[in-house]
Amino acid sequence: MFKLFYFPASCSLASHIALEEAGAEFEAIKVDFYTNEQRKAEYMTINPKGRVPALVTDEGILTENPAILSYIAMRFPEAKLAPLDDPFKLAKLQSFNAYLSSTVQVAHAHGLRGPRWADQQSSYDDMRQRVSGNMAECFQLIEDELLQGPWVMGETFSIADAYLFTFTSWLEGDGVDASQFDKVSQHMAAMLQRPCVQRAMAREQKQ
Amino acid sequence: MFKLFYFPASCSLASHIALEEAGAEFEAIKVDFYTNEQRKAEYMTINPKGRVPALVTDEGILTENPAILSYIAMRFPEAKLAPLDDPFKLAKLQSFNAYLSSTVQVAHAHGLRGPRWADQQSSYDDMRQRVSGNMAECFQLIEDELLQGPWVMGETFSIADAYLFTFTSWLEGDGVDASQFDKVSQHMAAMLQRPCVQRAMAREQKQ
Repeated sequence: MFKLFYFPASCSLASHIALEEAGAEFEAIKVDFYTNEQRKAEYMTINPKGRVPALVTDEGILTENPAILSYIAMRFPEAKLAPLDDPFKLAKLQSFNAYLSSTVQVAHAHGLRGPRWADQQSSYDDMRQRVSGNMAECFQLIEDELLQGPWVMGETFSIADAYLFTFTSWLEGDGVDASQFDKVSQHMAAMLQRPCVQRAMAREQKQ
Repeated sequence: MFKLFYFPASCSLASHIALEEAGAEFEAIKVDFYTNEQRKAEYMTINPKGRVPALVTDEGILTENPAILSYIAMRFPEAKLAPLDDPFKLAKLQSFNAYLSSTVQVAHAHGLRGPRWADQQSSYDDMRQRVSGNMAECFQLIEDELLQGPWVMGETFSIADAYLFTFTSWLEGDGVDASQFDKVSQHMAAMLQRPCVQRAMAREQKQ
């Protein structure tokens, strides 16, 4: 049985949804960011980066969404969550996930995580006022170039959809009107209809 | 035949080395950052993100180092550049690469790429003075937790080694003394001995 360490509505939601879509047996354990639990010794032994998600498996611990998502797809091939037998399509999917983790998440993080990269309040204020423009620019690229539709990889649902949905759900908080992006909005609506997505979100809100 | 679009000594060096290690036939094409070629129409049709690397394959174009590296490993399985048959080990490797792309590269980029996330000169100055501390913190984690030694994944060379080497080569410019990290320093020295690494570096310096 897997253990997923998460914080509600954070990027760990992607791995949470993927576990549901895979039909995996898992326990979801909340890491309380409000008490800075992710930086306390007990959690740091699980993930020395002090971040979520972390997935405890029978083979060891994994961190970083792109890796956890790939692992879930590989461990549950019958769920068909990635084009495992097609190197190019699989790399396209990994490219999409890499863009989300290294560009979109970073654009978003400059809203509240300025202290990672600067020391002055004026810098944090400066960074924060760029978040909505940067997130809109990222999602314009996703809309125009990356999201094939209806799912990220076209006709077939994949781990990339769980990951994209997580970031789309942040847009409103980042001051971006998602309705300007037709394909992204339809993707969001389709995701909200999926029982696995509903289950993961309900669990995160309840715990 | 592949085409790799790169800029010398940038993160694209990782994909360049991996192509050499795979024994792939490829053409390396320099994108001139000094004339902002990466943002001009011709290159933007190849990579609308305006970044390097981009790999043109007979199946389409790939961007993002973690995806290109995985693709090279999958397309050239005889080169044994990734543990393709072991989902957990492969996910561990992907986790390492994801950390490099989403945390280490971002820490580094705050030195010269401040305008991505802020508008004021004072913010750029503030960000820049954090680069050496943040890079040192990242490499302490790599030294203590992530780099198994002698190669990233232990006894077997992989695409993760090409990627780590690229970032290690930036440390001096970021004001970090690599010699404080024993395993990282030994890794760097071992990489510099590899003919494929030497070939990729020589090509980038010559063109």
